[in-house]
Amino acid sequence: MINPFFKNKGPFKISEIISVLKINKDQVNDDIDIYNITDLFSSKQNDITFLHSKKYNDIAKKTKASFCITTKNLKNELPESCKPLLVDNVLVSTSKVTEKFYPSSINDYFEDTCLNINSTKFKNKVKHGKNVLIGENVSIGSNCSIGHNTIIEHNVSIGNNSFVGSNVIIRNTLIKENVNILDNCVIGKHGFGFFPNNVKNLRYPHIGIVVIEEGCEIGCGSTIDRGSMSNTIIGKNTFLDNQIHIAHNVKIGANSIIAGQVGIAGSTTIGNNVKIGGQVGISGHLKIGNNVEIAGGSGVIKDISDNSKVMGYPAKSLRKFLRENK
Amino acid sequence: MINPFFKNKGPFKISEIISVLKINKDQVNDDIDIYNITDLFSSKQNDITFLHSKKYNDIAKKTKASFCITTKNLKNELPESCKPLLVDNVLVSTSKVTEKFYPSSINDYFEDTCLNINSTKFKNKVKHGKNVLIGENVSIGSNCSIGHNTIIEHNVSIGNNSFVGSNVIIRNTLIKENVNILDNCVIGKHGFGFFPNNVKNLRYPHIGIVVIEEGCEIGCGSTIDRGSMSNTIIGKNTFLDNQIHIAHNVKIGANSIIAGQVGIAGSTTIGNNVKIGGQVGISGHLKIGNNVEIAGGSGVIKDISDNSKVMGYPAKSLRKFLRENK
Amino acid sequence: MINPFFKNKGPFKISEIISVLKINKDQVNDDIDIYNITDLFSSKQNDITFLHSKKYNDIAKKTKASFCITTKNLKNELPESCKPLLVDNVLVSTSKVTEKFYPSSINDYFEDTCLNINSTKFKNKVKHGKNVLIGENVSIGSNCSIGHNTIIEHNVSIGNNSFVGSNVIIRNTLIKENVNILDNCVIGKHGFGFFPNNVKNLRYPHIGIVVIEEGCEIGCGSTIDRGSMSNTIIGKNTFLDNQIHIAHNVKIGANSIIAGQVGIAGSTTIGNNVKIGGQVGISGHLKIGNNVEIAGGSGVIKDISDNSKVMGYPAKSLRKFLRENK
Repeated sequence: MINPFFKNKGPFKISEIISVLKINKDQVNDDIDIYNITDLFSSKQNDITFLHSKKYNDIAKKTKASFCITTKNLKNELPESCKPLLVDNVLVSTSKVTEKFYPSSINDYFEDTCLNINSTKFKNKVKHGKNVLIGENVSIGSNCSIGHNTIIEHNVSIGNNSFVGSNVIIRNTLIKENVNILDNCVIGKHGFGFFPNNVKNLRYPHIGIVVIEEGCEIGCGSTIDRGSMSNTIIGKNTFLDNQIHIAHNVKIGANSIIAGQVGIAGSTTIGNNVKIGGQVGISGHLKIGNNVEIAGGSGVIKDISDNSKVMGYPAKSLRKFLRENK
Repeated sequence: MINPFFKNKGPFKISEIISVLKINKDQVNDDIDIYNITDLFSSKQNDITFLHSKKYNDIAKKTKASFCITTKNLKNELPESCKPLLVDNVLVSTSKVTEKFYPSSINDYFEDTCLNINSTKFKNKVKHGKNVLIGENVSIGSNCSIGHNTIIEHNVSIGNNSFVGSNVIIRNTLIKENVNILDNCVIGKHGFGFFPNNVKNLRYPHIGIVVIEEGCEIGCGSTIDRGSMSNTIIGKNTFLDNQIHIAHNVKIGANSIIAGQVGIAGSTTIGNNVKIGGQVGISGHLKIGNNVEIAGGSGVIKDISDNSKVMGYPAKSLRKFLRENK
Repeated sequence: MINPFFKNKGPFKISEIISVLKINKDQVNDDIDIYNITDLFSSKQNDITFLHSKKYNDIAKKTKASFCITTKNLKNELPESCKPLLVDNVLVSTSKVTEKFYPSSINDYFEDTCLNINSTKFKNKVKHGKNVLIGENVSIGSNCSIGHNTIIEHNVSIGNNSFVGSNVIIRNTLIKENVNILDNCVIGKHGFGFFPNNVKNLRYPHIGIVVIEEGCEIGCGSTIDRGSMSNTIIGKNTFLDNQIHIAHNVKIGANSIIAGQVGIAGSTTIGNNVKIGGQVGISGHLKIGNNVEIAGGSGVIKDISDNSKVMGYPAKSLRKFLRENK
């Protein structure tokens, strides 16, 4: 996962992490430094990871992490080099530890250190409208323009020849070259991810970013949320129309075309050369193949294989839908 | 109905009201003062109310109002203490009288008396971005923050520890403690309510407000309209995702979760612990019970009883929908 | 097509146009001046037009244009007075020539010559909020108001007694009298029209404008795109609710009512007195008659004749839909 932005506040002693988890300290002997929290696959020695479902048993067996937040039932899947920390709710516990390493990834309070662009190094470098604000850790390439009232908050990189419209808000986002972001978009806020709780819902950290590849266009009033433990990605030369919502962790391939008011729920992956009609909704955690065409208004609740044309709610073969609805 | 905001310009002589209605003055003997216009149930002596459907006959019989705008067919449902004023179109007439009592509730012209927050008492009290505007009759609790370019127009109260993002517009809204309003929302404008007329549609007054209870989150680009004769309410600890539209008079219970691009039409009531998937549409004037789950993409056109799971357009039992759509 | 805005950079010698098209110069003898590019019907002598489908053969036979971009298969449909210019892809070629005549119609980069309204002639004439920006070629009638942070870019005419909310962006738009544009709208940007290309999608010019007739209301957060070769039109006294998307070239009649989150795809025509429920989607290039009612949530993929009531996805007779979905 490319993530040049969120600052890791570690290392922390494992005893400090134990104390965040409010579990029995006897689970740990040696009070070593822990450098990061990440998934089973990416973890290195002296990292902490998490295992919450037997779906991941195969990856678990090979993890290099030194510790793993997990449950009594799953602890035997881990290699000897990885010590289990037993908890009741793996995801809530993981969330708490992630927040410790990346405290700035929980909330999206506006950045009060933003400066008017005329007080920054971009004053003469970037063509800009009135009242443009620039936050910390921002880079902007050559030949870019930024419209009126737009707010480029912290952790944004914009490639050459890219254009950002007016009234746009962007944070935690990597924008490549030749990208057009049209008016009124909000890009890079945390996703709609939290643990429901009747006293107070618990937000989990979003340490992912948004990546918008070369040549994309994002239509007016669209929202693209950043990822939680991975990135949200819009592939090269993909065009989005107005009022589209892309949830956290979604990955869209290259050369795709997405019409107005489409919504794509969290963690869904979409292939290359995909055409999606207006107002289509796609459920979370699905895999849509390459060269797929989804007719406007469809509701997709299952994976779709390469080269398929679908329509309906729930979406089915276009031919079948049209035959049934003559 | 809690309504600390709209100013009642009454009392008015009943003769003045008669003249607004352009009806026969002989319908009234004594030119008494009338203090308010409200519904059949809430009215007190010396108020005026309205009765436009026999659905409300039972409540009508007990109203304490001194006058009631109604039709020839319904006038006999009123108690002796309540004198009928006979009109052709009860709702249009009610609208005209409401406008007389609450003239500022018709239109939502921007508030030209807004001041930059740095010229107000909130300058040092509230953490705020650039170019924040504050209107009349605004209160903001402790430990709040307000993002860049946000406009808090007239009649807004914000509780402690609440956060408002950037580019937000709020008016006529009561926000409780620990609420998060994300970027680009528009909250508290009048609803989409008017009497169609081919020469010029007639807007009716919206004297209700929006109430956002403790602990809520409202996603980016959402719109929540204020009520017409009652309030629009988002219950405690309810979370809304991006690009949601909540129409006037809608009431949502506590601990509900509403995913992106959902639309809820006017005067619908939704219970506690309700989960609504992305892009769901719910018709107006419905009652959705507690603990209901509505699958993404569904279109709801009937009431739903407690603890139901539904899917489809029109929404039906989830089990039935999945069986029929294997 | 009414178009007071985009500047025609012509005339150009036909040899210059030939060279844009990269076709054989031998197709032309006399190097005459060409004054405009327009459709088959509107063209005059010394204009250039285009023919890309046999659907238009009847109109082609009567065109007055001096040249026509077309294919080998269609060239025989033209009158003798109109010389065919043979290309492989008529629409791409038309796009290139249109861009030559109207270079400012391709991209919607923000207008960097906008001035704060207080530096313009509108300072005292128009009631306005803070931070209002005004571009070139703007006219505003009497008794209008413009909310905070609103950007009226180039090529906008606003009639008397019209109201524009806050955070609105408007360009290339003709607004008549007594119109209300609510907060956060984006009106007049180019449509979602381009030729897909895996190296780099090719945007085609949008030389149409948006026309909003007398007495309309446009709800918060709506987007109305301008036309490509014709105008996008919202008819007299038509009301749109929040979060609606109207694509390029759409034409809506008078006295229609369109509820929240509706999307209407490109080039569709809608009659007078049409009622459209919330979240309806209407495909492109359709004709919806007068007095039609479309129930909320419907997906319309066929023409609808006058006075019909429809519901469903795909939309069918309301009676039939309700019978089938008891």
